[in-house]
Amino acid sequence: MIHAGILGGGQLGRMLLQAAANYPVVTHVLENDPHCPAAHLCHSFTEGDIRSFHDVLAFGRGLDVITIEIEQINLEALEQLEREGVRVIPRPAALRQLRSKVDQKQFYAAQQLPSAPFVITQSKNDLYAHTHRFPAIHKVGEGGYDGRGVLKIRSEADIPTAFDTPSVLEDLVPFDRELSVIVAAMPSGQIVSYPPVDMVADPVLHQLDYQLAPASIPPAITEKAQQIAESLVRALQSPGLFAVELFQTANGEILINETAPRVHNSGHHTMEAAYCSQFDMVWRILLDLPAGDTRLHHASAMVNLVGAPDQSGPVVYDGLDNLLAHPGAYVHLYGKAETRPGRKMGHFTLLATDTTLLPEHIHQLKSLIRVNSRS
Amino acid sequence: MIHAGILGGGQLGRMLLQAAANYPVVTHVLENDPHCPAAHLCHSFTEGDIRSFHDVLAFGRGLDVITIEIEQINLEALEQLEREGVRVIPRPAALRQLRSKVDQKQFYAAQQLPSAPFVITQSKNDLYAHTHRFPAIHKVGEGGYDGRGVLKIRSEADIPTAFDTPSVLEDLVPFDRELSVIVAAMPSGQIVSYPPVDMVADPVLHQLDYQLAPASIPPAITEKAQQIAESLVRALQSPGLFAVELFQTANGEILINETAPRVHNSGHHTMEAAYCSQFDMVWRILLDLPAGDTRLHHASAMVNLVGAPDQSGPVVYDGLDNLLAHPGAYVHLYGKAETRPGRKMGHFTLLATDTTLLPEHIHQLKSLIRVNSRS
Repeated sequence: MIHAGILGGGQLGRMLLQAAANYPVVTHVLENDPHCPAAHLCHSFTEGDIRSFHDVLAFGRGLDVITIEIEQINLEALEQLEREGVRVIPRPAALRQLRSKVDQKQFYAAQQLPSAPFVITQSKNDLYAHTHRFPAIHKVGEGGYDGRGVLKIRSEADIPTAFDTPSVLEDLVPFDRELSVIVAAMPSGQIVSYPPVDMVADPVLHQLDYQLAPASIPPAITEKAQQIAESLVRALQSPGLFAVELFQTANGEILINETAPRVHNSGHHTMEAAYCSQFDMVWRILLDLPAGDTRLHHASAMVNLVGAPDQSGPVVYDGLDNLLAHPGAYVHLYGKAETRPGRKMGHFTLLATDTTLLPEHIHQLKSLIRVNSRS
Repeated sequence: MIHAGILGGGQLGRMLLQAAANYPVVTHVLENDPHCPAAHLCHSFTEGDIRSFHDVLAFGRGLDVITIEIEQINLEALEQLEREGVRVIPRPAALRQLRSKVDQKQFYAAQQLPSAPFVITQSKNDLYAHTHRFPAIHKVGEGGYDGRGVLKIRSEADIPTAFDTPSVLEDLVPFDRELSVIVAAMPSGQIVSYPPVDMVADPVLHQLDYQLAPASIPPAITEKAQQIAESLVRALQSPGLFAVELFQTANGEILINETAPRVHNSGHHTMEAAYCSQFDMVWRILLDLPAGDTRLHHASAMVNLVGAPDQSGPVVYDGLDNLLAHPGAYVHLYGKAETRPGRKMGHFTLLATDTTLLPEHIHQLKSLIRVNSRS
């Protein structure tokens, strides 16, 4: 039996482990919180720091294959494990190319993959040399997550608020929509991708609010988005599952926004709406099984359930019964003990025969459920 | 958070726990084998005997709700737990009515539910009084499972092989097909059922070989089968999920064969082919959530993967890659370390747009995979 390790024990690990139980694999998780969402669903849980060279190395030795469910891991330990013969998926060299937004932009440029024009800044002061680019977007190289680490710089007056570490200053390209394409690179070299989804961000939290699958775009744009995302993954020269976020500009151009080397929030609908879920696909990759079927059998919406703005403490999901009374509604709660404002506590998926009425329906459904703290 | 316990840690428990991770529930499992299929997927595993009054009572105290994944449990302890205020689902009174095949037949008769004519026998010798019924089927009251505990009595000469404990002697009714209907009884009293499936037994192992969903029967028979199965469950006066196995006779009559008070092998296709799986449905019942949608969105076949006849020892799934190369094929392996001839080690499901070609396709797919022991 193959022993597989996952660095990180959040909700992505949790859903990976739900799928793992279908396959001949013994699962191991490294995470510092023994009550994390994935802790109770693996064969073996190790309490430790995924950012520690020592902890990751000790965890990975003896495993057949190791993967990640979050980017903030010790890459040097993964490189050492690869040298020692552990299969690391995605390969550390690919993780290095995507490690920071600075690395990503340089990789896209080197590979002639389309993304918005940019310069790299090392400190705030560097921005004074680029005022002709304003308004522009400043993205911190490392540590950004779910809307944190991205700023709009309208004018020189905003420079004091900018990032003082290596960052990307990107031209503000007006876009019509944000798309995401999940791409699977099999150990054989075969590359397959899921149909693009429309991503709609929460205007306050700056994180994914909901997504619609398939995206309401013409076939030519679908093809272009998948082709760009697959080219990107091909250039990484590594097996693995990747989420490529894209902008569609007003003139139909597709630009790469960013890439995550792991299962992704924008792919959660695949559990109910696609023939092979993104989580099953990861096990097919890790266990060197054939690629799964990326086609969708239903249109769907996927909506994040985040902690209500005014609530902190032990979580309670008010209205879950109302939500689940709706045919075609599926819930995935992440088992986090405590809610906080805006914290991702779960998601729900709504299946439909077409996407037309989905935005209206999900707004109705969202009003039925609220992530509160037990008062 | 609700604390829910499961008596038994086999593959049914395993698949229940995969689904449990979607809901706000803390899971507990009682089972004597700490390496059982479900052991690593619950929040809390207790090593103990599900047939022991003491072990079940100690396990159940402090839980909010408790259910079973196998019938051979200590019923008296569940009765005691119910008296103490633990919600036991299905209710012990319902479990008692289905406990043995003798109890089941008497229950069907008392409720005027259709099943084959029968007499109860207490010992082999009793059969001499019923030779006019031969050929007949002798079914042991308790302990039968997957084809064990059922004998055909052709003539008086077979009596010495018959069961010497309380058993059912049932008329041999020629039937055209075996059907199964999964029925969910919600805590609210609402009863819903899944479309009937065609069950095809292995002629050697006398256990389910494969099933096809939906069954290839006229709408009137579908309706009749669901109506009988729902009436049966209504008469049990208990929430829970039940599998009702039925015979369709040559003249279109529907007779109840037997009833299992739990998720069932014949309902595994619901994970991929129905809007709500039988496993999700159990959590909706245990957590008092609304009934799920029992409709099928694809036709499907579900095929058991059993240990090859000549193989015993540490399991290896030869040809898994070939099986999973087939679009629409899904595998569920049960994590059992050792294979034995005929042992249920997993199953696969094949989705299709209609059932016509499924029998041919699954015979092709079955030839691709073999459950062997590691030589």
